[in-house]
Formats: sequence, C-alpha cells, structure tokens
Amino acid sequence: MRRVAVIGVGVTKFGKHERSSSELFAEAAADALADAGLPASAVQAVYYGNVVGGETEHQLHTSPQAASILGLPAVPTTRIENACASSHVAFRHAVMEVGSGTSDVVLVGGGERVLNVPTAESTEYFAYASDAAWEQTLGLTFPGVFALIARAHMQKYGTTEAQMAAVAVKNHKHAVHNPKAQFQKEITLEQVLKSAYVADPLKLYDCCPFTDGGAALVLASEEVARRSRKPVWVLAAAAAADWMLMADKRDLSRVPATERAAAAAYRQAGIGPQDVDVVELHDCFTIAEIVATEGLGLFEPGAGGRAAAEGQTSLGGKIPVNVSGGLKAKGHPIGATGAAQVAEIVTQLRGEAGPRQVEGARRGLAHTLGGNTATVCVSLFGRD
Amino acid sequence: MRRVAVIGVGVTKFGKHERSSSELFAEAAADALADAGLPASAVQAVYYGNVVGGETEHQLHTSPQAASILGLPAVPTTRIENACASSHVAFRHAVMEVGSGTSDVVLVGGGERVLNVPTAESTEYFAYASDAAWEQTLGLTFPGVFALIARAHMQKYGTTEAQMAAVAVKNHKHAVHNPKAQFQKEITLEQVLKSAYVADPLKLYDCCPFTDGGAALVLASEEVARRSRKPVWVLAAAAAADWMLMADKRDLSRVPATERAAAAAYRQAGIGPQDVDVVELHDCFTIAEIVATEGLGLFEPGAGGRAAAEGQTSLGGKIPVNVSGGLKAKGHPIGATGAAQVAEIVTQLRGEAGPRQVEGARRGLAHTLGGNTATVCVSLFGRD
Repeated sequence: MRRVAVIGVGVTKFGKHERSSSELFAEAAADALADAGLPASAVQAVYYGNVVGGETEHQLHTSPQAASILGLPAVPTTRIENACASSHVAFRHAVMEVGSGTSDVVLVGGGERVLNVPTAESTEYFAYASDAAWEQTLGLTFPGVFALIARAHMQKYGTTEAQMAAVAVKNHKHAVHNPKAQFQKEITLEQVLKSAYVADPLKLYDCCPFTDGGAALVLASEEVARRSRKPVWVLAAAAAADWMLMADKRDLSRVPATERAAAAAYRQAGIGPQDVDVVELHDCFTIAEIVATEGLGLFEPGAGGRAAAEGQTSLGGKIPVNVSGGLKAKGHPIGATGAAQVAEIVTQLRGEAGPRQVEGARRGLAHTLGGNTATVCVSLFGRD
Repeated sequence: MRRVAVIGVGVTKFGKHERSSSELFAEAAADALADAGLPASAVQAVYYGNVVGGETEHQLHTSPQAASILGLPAVPTTRIENACASSHVAFRHAVMEVGSGTSDVVLVGGGERVLNVPTAESTEYFAYASDAAWEQTLGLTFPGVFALIARAHMQKYGTTEAQMAAVAVKNHKHAVHNPKAQFQKEITLEQVLKSAYVADPLKLYDCCPFTDGGAALVLASEEVARRSRKPVWVLAAAAAADWMLMADKRDLSRVPATERAAAAAYRQAGIGPQDVDVVELHDCFTIAEIVATEGLGLFEPGAGGRAAAEGQTSLGGKIPVNVSGGLKAKGHPIGATGAAQVAEIVTQLRGEAGPRQVEGARRGLAHTLGGNTATVCVSLFGRD
C-alpha cells in the first residue's frame, strides 16, 4: 500500500441546520477542497457516510446526490452506513482506494440531519442500529445500551457517576474553544449530577446531543501530498467488529471491537499508545469515553474514570482527549462524526487548533464506534 | 493491484421469504463459503449491500448483524448503499481490499426484504433513491424515470413497445431454466403488450418484480484461489456516476454512467465488447436492458431494441444477455442484485449453468445500475 495523506479538512458548524445532509456534506467538502488547494475536478472518487437519511429525509442514494451538488457527476461514489462509525468506515475505504493506487485524490466525509424530526423519532431511528427482532422489540435504545455498559463498569471497577460527570465537564470546557461546537459553554459537575436520569445511571448531561452537520476530508497520494501545505500522514486505518447483540457479549465493561481495532492500528503504524499526543474518541455517552480510553490502551482497564476525574485527559493533561469538545459538546451528527474527528486530529497535528491546541502534538488517534459497539474504527496520524 | 478471483458463489431462491435481509444474505454466504471450500473463519472482511432495510425492517447497521449470524463477530464489516447497485459497489470495494493486499479472503454480497410491506410502500421507499426535494415531491417513482428514458429512446431511434416486450419475453424464457428465479414461466409478446400501463409506455410486464433474496461471493487472492476449484478471475471492477437529477441529464436516451463505467472496465481488462461471451445486465425495466446493451458497446446506439427483437441477445444468439432471467424474471432483491449477477457470470464461466449454459463462455460482464442512473458498476470476468 502507498502512503496516504490528509491534505484538506472541512467541518460545518454543528447544531441545527435548514439544509439536507448532502448539502451539509457538500459545504464541508467545498471547505476541505479549498483547504487542500484543489478544484473539485481533481477528485477521483467520493466516499460518503450517512446513517438515517432514509428515515429523517426520505433520501437514499446520497453519495451521487452529494457529488452532484459539488459538480462531480462522473466519478465513482459510495455511500457507507455503519451506524455512528459510518464516515470513519468510509475513511478507511478511501485510504484503501488511494493506498492501492486506484486513485490519487479522494474526497471522503459524511453528513446527517436529524433535528428536522422530533427527538422521540430520532431516538427510534437511531435504535435501528440495534437488532430489530431481539433488541428494539424490548425497547432498547442507545441510552439503555450505554447504561448497561456503565453499570457493568461501575460494578467491576467501582467507577462512579461523578467520574462520568467529569468527562462531560471536561468536554464542555474544551468546546468553549471550538467555534464549530454545538455547545460552546461550560457546565459544572453539580449540573451534570443533578440533571435528570435518562437511563440510570446515565443522566441528561452524560449524553451527547442530536446534531445536524457535515464533515469532509481530502486524501491524497504521497506525490500529490508533497505539493500541498502541511500534509498529515495516515499511519494506520483499522476497523473491527463485535457481536451485534448485547446478549452475546461476555463482558459489558469492555468493548472488544475497540481493543481489536486499536491493536491492528498500532501494529500497522508501528507505534503504541504511549506515542500518541492527542486523541479524539467516541464519547456518545460519558461512560463510552472512559471505556474507550481503556480499550485504546491509554489507561489500564478500570482506571479510565479516575484518570478523567484527575484531569489526565484534559487539555494540558497527560493525554488530552476530545479537545474539540467531543461528541458530548461539539455535537454528534452521526454520519459526519468520524470524519469530523479526523479533521480535528489533522488540525491539531498541523498546529492550527488555536486556543485548544495540544502543544507539540506529532501523533494523533481517532476512534469511532457504531451501534451496540459492533463496529469500531481506529486510525492513527502523524506529521513530518 | 494483485489479481483477485471469485472462488465461491451463493444465491437464495428469489421470491417471498419470511426471513430478514441479513438472514437471507447469511444463507447465501454459507452456500458461497461451502462452494469455496472454506470455513467462515477464513473470512477477513465482510462487505454487505442493503438498500431499504431501514424502511422495511427498521434495521440499520446490517453488516455486523449479518456477520454475527455467520459467526464472524470480529472482522471489519461494511454496509454499502448505492440504491440498486449496492452489492456491485460493495463487490468493487471487496476487490480493492483483496487487490491492495489488505486481505486474502473477503465475503461480499447483499440481501433485501421488501415483500413484507405493501407494494405502494415499497414503491415509495424505492423512490427515496431519487431526489427528495426535486423529484419525490413531483411524484416521480422509478417506473416514471424509466418511462421518460423509454420515451426519449423511442423518439430518437424509433424503438417500439414490441421491441421492449421482446426483452421481457426473452428473459422469462431464460428464467425457466433457473431454479432460483422468482418467475419460472414463459410469457408471450401479446401478454406483455396487453398488460396494463404502469407508466406509459411501460406496462406491467415491462417491469421487474419486488423480490426478497440474498446473494454472496467469496473473493480471494491469487495464492488462495490457486488452491480452489475453478477460480474465475476479476479482469475489471469499475464504477461511474451521473448527475442525480433527471432534469440535469442532457440526453435521456443514453446512460452516461454505463458508458463511463464500461469504458473504464474494458480499459482495465484490456478487452472490448466483442470479447465478451455472456452478459448479466440491469433490466429493472425492459427499456433499461436495451439502453444498457448500447451503453456497454454490444450494439450501436439505437440498435438495442431491434437486436433484442431479432433474438441476438437470447441464449444461442450473438451475445446472450440475462440468461439467468435477469431482474425481470429472476427477480430484483435490490441490495442483492449485483452480487447475484456476478454469481451467474461465475457459474457460466465455470460451465456449470446447466440448461441455460452459454456454450464455451470464457469472458463475462456484469452491469448494475442504481437509482436515476446515477450509479453504475461494470465488472469483467475471465476463466483460465
């Protein structure tokens, strides 16, 4: 496989929009192309992550639609749906397309629109990522999935609601410095702990919001990347899965797909967790961040909650996690999330993150989780 | 890119099923693995095409679900949705995964279930593949899209309703020899011509049916393939797009995405249309077959209708098209269609198609179209 670089990134403001998901992706893509200094005509393939477009917009076949908006009617387009990991899965395939020599310049990203329907409706559509026959019928929605995970982690390791709340407080604090974030405001530990239970032990402020938004990346071969400003190299792009059903998982305090994808990514890159300077990971719920920091090898199993409460994952801490604000405060436009995480890592490694910059960051990691933890992607990045 | 072979194929009976699309895919996948002589544990990645699972089954994130059913909880899985071309797009990416050296054995296919909802509902869901804002709002469904194409072709070339009907008669005749086909019965030209108009000039028997079904393929690197019985080599796997909106297309008598994908495929394989012995192409409506035979270079523009009526595309004719029965008679489980077409070509090139065998077939072509002709895949295959 050839070396692959990210040479352009674009992210829309996250929040509520009066535009379609394809239009949101196209806006981000135009920014990413401008950032890369390339015209749309340079793009040889489009990879597009979108999850509930069929449900919230009555729109399928979104990849050629997005490409049409960008004035790209001829190149191959692919829509990928792997629940909340969609655009990270798309990213991995785009890396393969460039790495294999099939294309030199590829556009990849995602878009999602959900705030045009009531919250109860989006919650139901999101639950389509769990099993229709065995889980949806029991009323299992995603707050319930992660409440089960939280309970298992609390029982096994003594993780507390206050430690989980610390993740929310940290990510909101980070988001203050991210103008694209949905919530640019701090919250207090007390606010989190006093917020209403959504699925015990998870409270409202343990949960990420519903979000509209788009994100895009321009990938290029080494030859093209060498002519661009500040290319960021893809050191690894790995994916793994797990049993679909919660009932088939042996230990809910862990996410085996994260551990598998991380092991594959570190092996591909020839580095370990100790070599990573900045991490964007999938904090759809605060407990998800704690379990992910353990699964990625940043902390020992069971140590993630304490590490968060101690500030080890804060900007300026041992290993800053979700300095963008994370899904929790930046927002979670599901199909766009993976690409937005990669965009943040690229911005950090370029040293262009302004007041949320992790000083001297040379290597970064992006982690995205889909559904009942049945899809996980982990990618690693480095600068020259 | 390394050489890639298809070493196993599996297709369910097409028609109505009381199983989920993931279960249908898994059934086909188990057959494909048995055909390849490999255990499920040999599979290193799963690519899965499914279109309206969110709508008809309330099920997203179908690729890990299908992998779980197969007892494959750990390997990367990808769900791809490009309307009716979904599993052919998935096939192209699976070829890239093996070709790039990322994996040696990959499972790819698709599944779809639509007969569990009323026809009016499926028709609406299928229309989600056209533009929600500019086309669905005008009531444009797929019979309407292809009726526009038929009218343009009739006006420009004098193509007749009888020529279109000849395609239906031929494909039904072929399907008699395919035990997996939804309709294993012949129809007459008169029956087609006297059937009710669905979207003038297209009548009921010009349209393919709604279908449940699954199809799967096992792809392998050359090293693995050399140890299998009768590997069929992938000579090319190409995709192309076109403007999403019908209103943006300049000449409705042509499908530029077919022409682009065919040109790329012939270039990759180093052969031309004259070298192809057997073709499975996307006859969602009879006019679609006529336009595709022209776009693939099998006949001059405007000559496709006459060629069909003269029997040139029948089993035993100059270039047999859709000897499986095609979407028209074999059935069209949309997410599974592309993989099922490839399975037929592989069966033909192995010489194992029984009474529908194209004698001496050495090279085959599969063509799949998605949505308003905005995604097209063309792949070429050859035997040793």
